[in-house]
This record gives sequence, C-alpha cells and structure tokens, in this order.
Amino acid sequence: MIRVTVWNEYVHEKTDKNVADIYPSGIHGAIAEFLGKEEDIVVRTATLDDENCGITKEVLDSTDVLIWWGHVAHHKVPDEIAYMVRDAVLEGMGLICLHSAHHSKPFRYLLGTSCNLTWRETNDGEILWVIEPSHPITRGIDRYFKLPAEETYGEPFVIPTPDKLLLIGNYSGGEVFRSGCLYERGNGKIFYFQPGHESYPTFYVPEVQTIIKNAVRFVNPIYREEIGCPHVRKITDEGSYVI
Amino acid sequence: MIRVTVWNEYVHEKTDKNVADIYPSGIHGAIAEFLGKEEDIVVRTATLDDENCGITKEVLDSTDVLIWWGHVAHHKVPDEIAYMVRDAVLEGMGLICLHSAHHSKPFRYLLGTSCNLTWRETNDGEILWVIEPSHPITRGIDRYFKLPAEETYGEPFVIPTPDKLLLIGNYSGGEVFRSGCLYERGNGKIFYFQPGHESYPTFYVPEVQTIIKNAVRFVNPIYREEIGCPHVRKITDEGSYVI
Amino acid sequence: MIRVTVWNEYVHEKTDKNVADIYPSGIHGAIAEFLGKEEDIVVRTATLDDENCGITKEVLDSTDVLIWWGHVAHHKVPDEIAYMVRDAVLEGMGLICLHSAHHSKPFRYLLGTSCNLTWRETNDGEILWVIEPSHPITRGIDRYFKLPAEETYGEPFVIPTPDKLLLIGNYSGGEVFRSGCLYERGNGKIFYFQPGHESYPTFYVPEVQTIIKNAVRFVNPIYREEIGCPHVRKITDEGSYVI
Amino acid sequence: MIRVTVWNEYVHEKTDKNVADIYPSGIHGAIAEFLGKEEDIVVRTATLDDENCGITKEVLDSTDVLIWWGHVAHHKVPDEIAYMVRDAVLEGMGLICLHSAHHSKPFRYLLGTSCNLTWRETNDGEILWVIEPSHPITRGIDRYFKLPAEETYGEPFVIPTPDKLLLIGNYSGGEVFRSGCLYERGNGKIFYFQPGHESYPTFYVPEVQTIIKNAVRFVNPIYREEIGCPHVRKITDEGSYVI
Repeated sequence: MIRVTVWNEYVHEKTDKNVADIYPSGIHGAIAEFLGKEEDIVVRTATLDDENCGITKEVLDSTDVLIWWGHVAHHKVPDEIAYMVRDAVLEGMGLICLHSAHHSKPFRYLLGTSCNLTWRETNDGEILWVIEPSHPITRGIDRYFKLPAEETYGEPFVIPTPDKLLLIGNYSGGEVFRSGCLYERGNGKIFYFQPGHESYPTFYVPEVQTIIKNAVRFVNPIYREEIGCPHVRKITDEGSYVI
Repeated sequence: MIRVTVWNEYVHEKTDKNVADIYPSGIHGAIAEFLGKEEDIVVRTATLDDENCGITKEVLDSTDVLIWWGHVAHHKVPDEIAYMVRDAVLEGMGLICLHSAHHSKPFRYLLGTSCNLTWRETNDGEILWVIEPSHPITRGIDRYFKLPAEETYGEPFVIPTPDKLLLIGNYSGGEVFRSGCLYERGNGKIFYFQPGHESYPTFYVPEVQTIIKNAVRFVNPIYREEIGCPHVRKITDEGSYVI
Repeated sequence: MIRVTVWNEYVHEKTDKNVADIYPSGIHGAIAEFLGKEEDIVVRTATLDDENCGITKEVLDSTDVLIWWGHVAHHKVPDEIAYMVRDAVLEGMGLICLHSAHHSKPFRYLLGTSCNLTWRETNDGEILWVIEPSHPITRGIDRYFKLPAEETYGEPFVIPTPDKLLLIGNYSGGEVFRSGCLYERGNGKIFYFQPGHESYPTFYVPEVQTIIKNAVRFVNPIYREEIGCPHVRKITDEGSYVI
Repeated sequence: MIRVTVWNEYVHEKTDKNVADIYPSGIHGAIAEFLGKEEDIVVRTATLDDENCGITKEVLDSTDVLIWWGHVAHHKVPDEIAYMVRDAVLEGMGLICLHSAHHSKPFRYLLGTSCNLTWRETNDGEILWVIEPSHPITRGIDRYFKLPAEETYGEPFVIPTPDKLLLIGNYSGGEVFRSGCLYERGNGKIFYFQPGHESYPTFYVPEVQTIIKNAVRFVNPIYREEIGCPHVRKITDEGSYVI
C-alpha cells in the first residue's frame, strides 16, 4: 500500500463561499476522496490548522508520497517544517506539488530557484498536451485534455530545467506553460502539476485525477535512506569502511 | 568573421508561384540577405541543384555554421553527404535546422530519433514564448512574439529531451510545440527553430531574424577537432601518449 | 514475463582459445544462462551467424529487451538491421549495450554521435562506483564493486550527456569512465554498461549480473507504439482527429 | 572588465600554521593574486571577519562573479546573507564554489539538496579528466592533469544531475568524483570545482588557475535582472502588459 498524505493550507475554502461550494470538504478532501478509492493507496490529510501543520517526523516517516496544495499562506508554514519535508524527499519520499504550490516552501527549498511565474485570472480555457506519451505519469491520457477554465500561468517559470517535461499547457488567452515537470533530488522524486486553482472544479476532472494517481505510483519510493557524508577509510581488499 | 553556409533544398520556390512570390531569390537567398548585413558574418549559399548538393569536405571545412532548410526533398540528399555534415558537427561546426528540417537527414542522424511531429496547415496564428530570457539566443526578444500565420506543428515531437528548451509556440488552433531546442553533440552545437514554412513570409519577421542571428553567434565553434578513439599508453610521470 | 533476446557477434569465442575457455558457450550463452534463471525473464539468443543476424521484424516484435554485444564485426551488421533495431527502440523496446557495443550500429544510430572513446589493454583493475544509489538499476549494489581486470576505457567518451549517469569506473592505471549511462529515446530506454571485455570472465561477476538483471527490468517497456507524424484536423469540441 | 569578488571564510589560515605557510595571504589572497593579473578581470576579496561577511547588496550589485571558499564556518554565514547571494545568482551573477564550499549555504540553497559527499584525508594523488574537451571552461587543459595530493572526495555526491559534467577526478586510493559541475539557475550560472583543500598548495597549480580563470569568463553574466512573478493583462494587438 502506498501511504499518501494530502496537505492543504485550507484557507480559501473557509473564507470564500465560491470555493467552499466547489470543495465543501476542502481541496484536500476532494483529492483524498478519489485517491482513497484506489486499492493500492491509503490516504490521510493534514492542514495548516493542525498542530505543527500536521507535519511531524512521525507523519513523514510513515508517508510514502506527500501531496501539497498551498497559495496564500505559504509563509505560515515554519521553515523547520519545510526543511523536514525537504529532507524526507532527499531520503526518498515522493512529493507532488499542485498548482500554486509552485511557491510553497518545500518546493522552492528543494529546487533552489524563486519558482516565480507569470499569471492572470481571466477564465482562460486550457488545453494540456502530453509531451511524453510513454511516461507512466501520462498513461491513460490521450494526446491532450481540456480544462474549461483555469488560472493562466505563463513563462518564464523560474525553475531548473526539469529532468523530464511531461505536459505543456496552451491557454486560450495565448500563453503556454510547462504544466507537468518531473525532478529527481537525492533519493526522491518530485512532480509539479499546474492545474488546480481553487475557484474552478479542476480536481474533479477525470484526466487530472488520472495524472495525480499515476504520479503517486511513480514518485512512490523504492528506497528510502538518508545519504550522509561519511568519513571513509581507504579501500583495502576487505572493503572501504565508514569511520 | 563567422563563415555561414545557408543550405536550402530550393524546390518549392521553383515549382509554386505563391512561394516564389514570397521568396523570389529562394529561402536561402532571404536568409543570406539579412545575415549578410551583419559585420561579423560572411554568408554563402548552397542548394540541392549544386554538384554534391553544394556540400563538400572543403565547404564544410570552411563553414563555421551551417543553416539547413528542407522539406519535400530530404531523401534526395545522399547519405554520404548527411554523414559528412554529421561528422563536421561532431567536430565542432554549428548547425541550425529550420522548420521542416526537423526531418532532414543531418538533424535525424545527429539526434537518433525519428523527429516525427504532428502537423496541420490551417493558417493558425502562433505566439512564441521565451522560456529562457537570459540565453544568448533569445537576447533582444521580448516575453513573446507573434507570427500572423504559420504551419501548425504539434506534440509529441519525437526528439531527445533538449539540452535547453528556449522557446515554446502557442498556436491559435490550440496546439503547443517546443519551437526552440538546443543540443550539444560532440564538439558541436545544434539549434532547432520551428518557424519558417515556405508559404508564409516568416523569414522577414524581425524577431525570427534576430533569433537566427543570435543562434549563428551562439553555435559558432570556439573549438573544432575530431574526437577520435585513441589507443593510449599507460600514464607515467611523462604523460599518457596516444600509441 | 520479460522476453529478452541476447545478441552477440560471436567471433572471438570461435577464433581465440583464451576467450573460448572463458566463454565456452559464447558471451551470449553466459548472459542467457544467468538471465534464464530469473522467474520473470525468458531468454533467447541470436548471433551474426544466424540468417539476418537473427534479427527480423518478428524477433523484434516479440522482444521486450534486446541485449547487444559486439566488437570486431560491427560493420557486418547490415544498416537495414540496425535501423530495424533503432526503430523498435523508438517504439519502446528496451536496449542494453554492453562494453564494446558502444561502437555498435544500433547504439551509434540511436545516439547520433561517434561514441568514440579512449582505450588501453593492460589488465588494469577497475572499481565501479554507484553514483545514484536509489536507482532501480543499482539496487543491491554496495557503494562500489571491483573487477580484478578489465580493458581500460577512458574519457572523452563521445556520447550525448546521459539522461542519468549511474556508474563511474576508476581504473588502477588512472583513467575514469562513465560506465553506466541511461538514455530515453522515443518510447524506449537504452542502458550502456561498460564492463565485459571478451578476455576476462567479467560476465560471471555477481554485481555485473545483478546490474544486467536490474537493467532488463528497468528498460522493459510499459508501452510500445510507433509515434508517427500524424496530419491532424483542427481541434473541435469533438476532438482533434488524425486525417 | 569582469568584477570578481573572492570570498573566503579565512579561518584555517589564521589557526593552522601549515595552512598559513601555504597561503600566507589567505586562500582568497592566492586566488585574487592570479586573477588580478588578467587584463579583463578586477578582483576584490571579502571574508567572514568583514562586517556582514563583506557581502552587502552594494557588493553583490557590483559583482559579476562571486567565488566562494568555506569549510568549518559555513554556519557562521547568516541565512540572510546566503539568501542575498542566492537571489543575486538567480538575477544573473555568476557563482564559483570551490572544494568544501559544496556545503556552503549559497551552494546548498541554490541546488536544494544536501550536497553531502564521502571523504577521506590520506594524501591521495588525484588525476582530473576532461569530459568535455570543447567547453570554454576546460580550454587550455590537456586530456587530464594531476594533483600530487588532495583530500579525497567520493560518490555519492548528493547534487542534482549537473546541467553539464566537465571533469571527473580519479584518486589513487580508488575513488572517483564529479569534480567539475555546471548549473544554470534563473539567469545565473554556477560552477562547482572540487580541488582546493586548505592543506595543499592546489591553488598554485597552473591547470587549477586556468580552469578558475576560464570559469570566471564563462559564468560572467550577459544579462542581469530579477525574473519576477508579474500579474499580466490578457494579450491584445497592443501587447500583454504587466498590471
């Protein structure tokens, strides 16, 4: 079983009726619901309201894949918690950052860049194109899929060149965006996926759910261990031991 | 001085009045004209009609950057000539492949993949977005530029992941395309640039010309030498010599 | 079951007693033997002596992973066969190229470079270091493993930058080499693995066998299909169809 | 003129006679001395002892390339200063991190990983091999060069896959190390170069000096500007403006 923790700042849903109507049990609730139906996945959720943001060493140690959604409250996540997440990813925990989590501390601290992007909220339609049709994360998706309306994200997106670019979005207003970006950092895999603005029912779109489910399975670690900085003895016929 | 050779199959311009009207001296002529105005560039041209396609060892040895345009006559370029181009690139010669030259032999033989792509000819407008604003090839270009009409190219584009993706195109019909792709192979640099269908006056667009001029300077080699397969002696205090 | 075909030029074993003593049933036989013991793998072999080099469309269509060993007879493999292998890889078939197969036609045609390297045969010992400890191909391998003697391969190795560098070799004579290189091309995965000179019993080394077994499972395709060059209709509410 | 600032924690030289004997004016002094002889470079230095570590917004704004050496006092550099360096690099400032600066805050914060590595201090000799002979940073270097003694650094080195791997080190004790690693982050270039332990006169080695001089010229920005997160208006015929 893949143990998934869905983290959501859970602010918009409590302060904006429009968002609450779309996601009555929170964005985390919507994601947990469709993931929970998978036979190989067990889900729990955590939010900013939980003690320690719901992120402790114990939670991370028992999480195979962490999904993160945040937007207006990135700064309310203490640095120590963001560092714990970063270190768990370097050990092997998978991380999926959704939409405005491009600016979340765990994502920025792992990638090192500003992760800035260009944006506009004008109900543009978006067509997401599959760049790598044989990648496990895009399995089950046709050549493209459509979102009736999304927040427009545009280039430049200040990220390191992705290890693999899986999806590019085309917005009806004319922008493009690297909408599916895969990274390997330490022993961990990180997937950034652009759809999911709070004011649209994007997380109910079948293709969005398929990609998130595929991504959970892909970033699920086969190996989890801190890669330390060992002081080693010289190699002999008996081996090279850590001092 | 950067010595540029512009190669064009030069077929459409002689058989299609519409194309001839746009490019009366051929696509190669149009490219040579704006490059020839640069103080640090000298240009000559070559076409399929020339003996050996205009590509001999002597021509390649005295070419710093080769620009290639082809479409319906890729198969008329003999393999031996394509291999000579490939080997010159591996030694360090720069190569710029324009538009339908994605299917040219030199490009395919250097990248190894089919370089297939999806396409449609419906006069879509295209907006080309700069992904890497600080790259020498995109200097002088704003966040984006527009082409009133171009042939639509779509993903998947069966290429190796570019070493650097510089531009993405957004077509009014809804497609996206990796329109500016940079590769390093051996000692040489290769730039693929998507605009330039024969039935549109794309090579007169200032931003297209700027990008091609920038690319000439960027892929111009600082070093040119075959990297052979030397049989070497064991390293001693005097060095490691090729046998 | 993963259907593996082990291809070997099978020349040294028939002409050099030293090699025949080490690999009495050929290098292909030795590889097939340890792979054949795996429950999820079925193996067959093919050599240069077979009709069509043992590589037909039918063979490739029923091969999930092709392993290739060649050295002195690369040129005896007809181009048409090498192209068939290349195209099968682009469709998704996995390819593992061993040792001197760096110069084989399928490898060179897929990577596009000369794949030249520096070499010396002086019985250097080699220590192979794991660069990516969490990669499926290096699972079960400690920080390093040793080969008592191997042909020395040295840099520069004229290959495209690997998508992932998994192993680096250290030779007692002082050289280094990128000994485990992973590529994705089209829908296929390609793994190059340096050990395996014909005059040493390298393919009996447990770690070498582990890595080859791991690699078979890793490059085994989850998807196999030619990515063509479709002419598509404009996207409508009903979709975008291939014409 | 390229404006270089050489930063050194400057601790060993003041506390260890052996180091002081090798670098009487500090490691920063030794580096500044050979760089200062170049006609296109002006150098200044800064150390931990300076107010604000010698790193202010004004210093960074007037620095094209920052060279960093640190070892035992990484933690004494305040986070705010490390963030200023990171942000200057993302704007375009070049950064060269030497030897144990793999663990410096600017390097770690820009790359996002632990940058841990394996190490041993046993006076191993090192041979550094050029992987990319045509790269501007390795110009003027033969196939390899030797250091009589260096601290041994070993894999795994927990870094993101370098955008370009330029050098690999072979240690007489058997280790290998990715000794020259190039990254692009935001508008900036980062070069990590392994040689330079405080107890060896490595910075007097001609090839080490050549590589550092080459690297200064290569990471020197052609462009420097923060890439922000602009809120843009919809594209019209007049353009797309930042709100």
